[in-house]
Amino acid sequence: MIHKLIEKIQKTGAPIVVGLDPMLKYVPQHLQRKAYAEYGETLQGAAEAIWLFNKEIIDAIYDLVPAVKPQIAMYEQFGVEGLLVFQKTVAYCKEKGLIVIGDVKRGDIGSTSEAYAIGHLGKVQVGNNFCRGFDEDFITVNPYLGSDGVAPFIKVCKEEKKGIFVLVKTSNPSSGEFQDCMMRSRAAAGAVGADSGSFVDRPLYEAVGEKVAEWGADCMGDAYSYVGAVVGATYPEQGKALRKIMPKAFILVPGYGAQGGKGADLVHFFNEDGLGAIVNSSRGIIAAYQQSAYEKYGEEHFAEASRAAVIAMKEDIADALANR
Amino acid sequence: MIHKLIEKIQKTGAPIVVGLDPMLKYVPQHLQRKAYAEYGETLQGAAEAIWLFNKEIIDAIYDLVPAVKPQIAMYEQFGVEGLLVFQKTVAYCKEKGLIVIGDVKRGDIGSTSEAYAIGHLGKVQVGNNFCRGFDEDFITVNPYLGSDGVAPFIKVCKEEKKGIFVLVKTSNPSSGEFQDCMMRSRAAAGAVGADSGSFVDRPLYEAVGEKVAEWGADCMGDAYSYVGAVVGATYPEQGKALRKIMPKAFILVPGYGAQGGKGADLVHFFNEDGLGAIVNSSRGIIAAYQQSAYEKYGEEHFAEASRAAVIAMKEDIADALANR
Repeated sequence: MIHKLIEKIQKTGAPIVVGLDPMLKYVPQHLQRKAYAEYGETLQGAAEAIWLFNKEIIDAIYDLVPAVKPQIAMYEQFGVEGLLVFQKTVAYCKEKGLIVIGDVKRGDIGSTSEAYAIGHLGKVQVGNNFCRGFDEDFITVNPYLGSDGVAPFIKVCKEEKKGIFVLVKTSNPSSGEFQDCMMRSRAAAGAVGADSGSFVDRPLYEAVGEKVAEWGADCMGDAYSYVGAVVGATYPEQGKALRKIMPKAFILVPGYGAQGGKGADLVHFFNEDGLGAIVNSSRGIIAAYQQSAYEKYGEEHFAEASRAAVIAMKEDIADALANR
Repeated sequence: MIHKLIEKIQKTGAPIVVGLDPMLKYVPQHLQRKAYAEYGETLQGAAEAIWLFNKEIIDAIYDLVPAVKPQIAMYEQFGVEGLLVFQKTVAYCKEKGLIVIGDVKRGDIGSTSEAYAIGHLGKVQVGNNFCRGFDEDFITVNPYLGSDGVAPFIKVCKEEKKGIFVLVKTSNPSSGEFQDCMMRSRAAAGAVGADSGSFVDRPLYEAVGEKVAEWGADCMGDAYSYVGAVVGATYPEQGKALRKIMPKAFILVPGYGAQGGKGADLVHFFNEDGLGAIVNSSRGIIAAYQQSAYEKYGEEHFAEASRAAVIAMKEDIADALANR
């Protein structure tokens, strides 16, 4: 799947993923009215409104970008009804040729991570059949439980030729609280610039980044691994350091646009080959019609506003990469 | 809800939570046959088998324990069909008077954590209605993203008088990989036993434990907070240290039984008042009939074996607490 992602990035010229993170406040009134008329002001009605919204956006942008990233929390807030629409959205995007990164941030002890891996990337045995649950192409994974909590995801990725993005340095303001903790570890014997037995101080996210490189070494595509990383656009300096620590990991970069990240901040997340990163924008694309730059489209034409926002983002990133 | 949990622990004399983590290999053949006869060897058939299994266990143990902890991954592996049974299980347990701890380990940036908090503990506004998704009483939360990723869960807990258990030190073998990292931080000015400006080294899980105490101070029940912690039974020494760092946090203790934790390892997780901890066993209870100690019950009477295993666990923990 990492091959397919790279191929589609090269074909579209857009290292961009559209975050399908719908909230009801983004959904135009006419769609909400239509959904509630059919299903009432219920979880089912809300889920239908979200589906109508997603479908129109997907139809408007699928030829411009390689991938989408539905954030499962935005569906889970509507319970099982919402998750039905998550599933429907994943399937529809794949039908349109888009790669689907399920932003699920799952992670647990080994046997439990295995169940998540099966449900989102793999297949489960029922009697003599093998059945698929959500069936995304990639998912995001939380590393707090350590290697044995991540290993089952990697195992399923190898079987299915799919991939994961491990949270390394997240885009939110308080991500540094634990992720930036300066850690002491003993320098490896014979390490360059360090006496054997001396201490090295480095932030936790770098230690996680090293693990990502290590996990990924064992499941390589051609130039890049099945094991990627999440590093927020809001932390460009850390992105620069992590790019070197994990040269063969694709970096999924959230935080562009609404969260404050700009094209120029992103150049160091890419390798010299112009690859190695894919930048996400959610609100900035799907709720573009609510922003002054795109309000001329009007609520009825929200999906055209989303298309225009994707084109602008594509230019911003291409310019930044051309001028680095 | 923390009041209700304590009240029920005192009433049952059992600081025990039964982990409803069903896997198909635990489900007796006669239940699988029945479910597949009706729905085929499909996700729906698997989900029905799990439901039949859960219901019989719940009916056999609901009067003995205060709480259950369904692990959502075990349902999510069967996609939406599995999550329907998760929802049904939560509702049925509440109907039987059990407190439900959803073991979901969610955690994300602020706006996304809010959606998870709403879906699992709160209610979502749809038009003029407020609707509930999964509606557990407590959930588990992953802290890797820091305070702003945890805050929305606490906000909803305050509104709903519910609670969370934050992952501090997990029970799995590689939990130490990141959680035990020795961190450097500058000692607070005037701190006892430390010069102002000097450094203090401590493991990451202690820093997370301190945050749990800090977050919890703001939402206290009587003696205990709405914000609890997860600390694995497999790490008794760390549990002892964390008990002191977070005296008012209830500790959810996984890892008893199948993962290797014993009653005697658990005493330091409790406070002097005999409260402050609740010990989980999953496989050891729900798949008791597959263990030599309970095989005399036979597959048909699996739920009676589970009841016997709960009684044995209750005695083991009561003995350990009496002899500490």
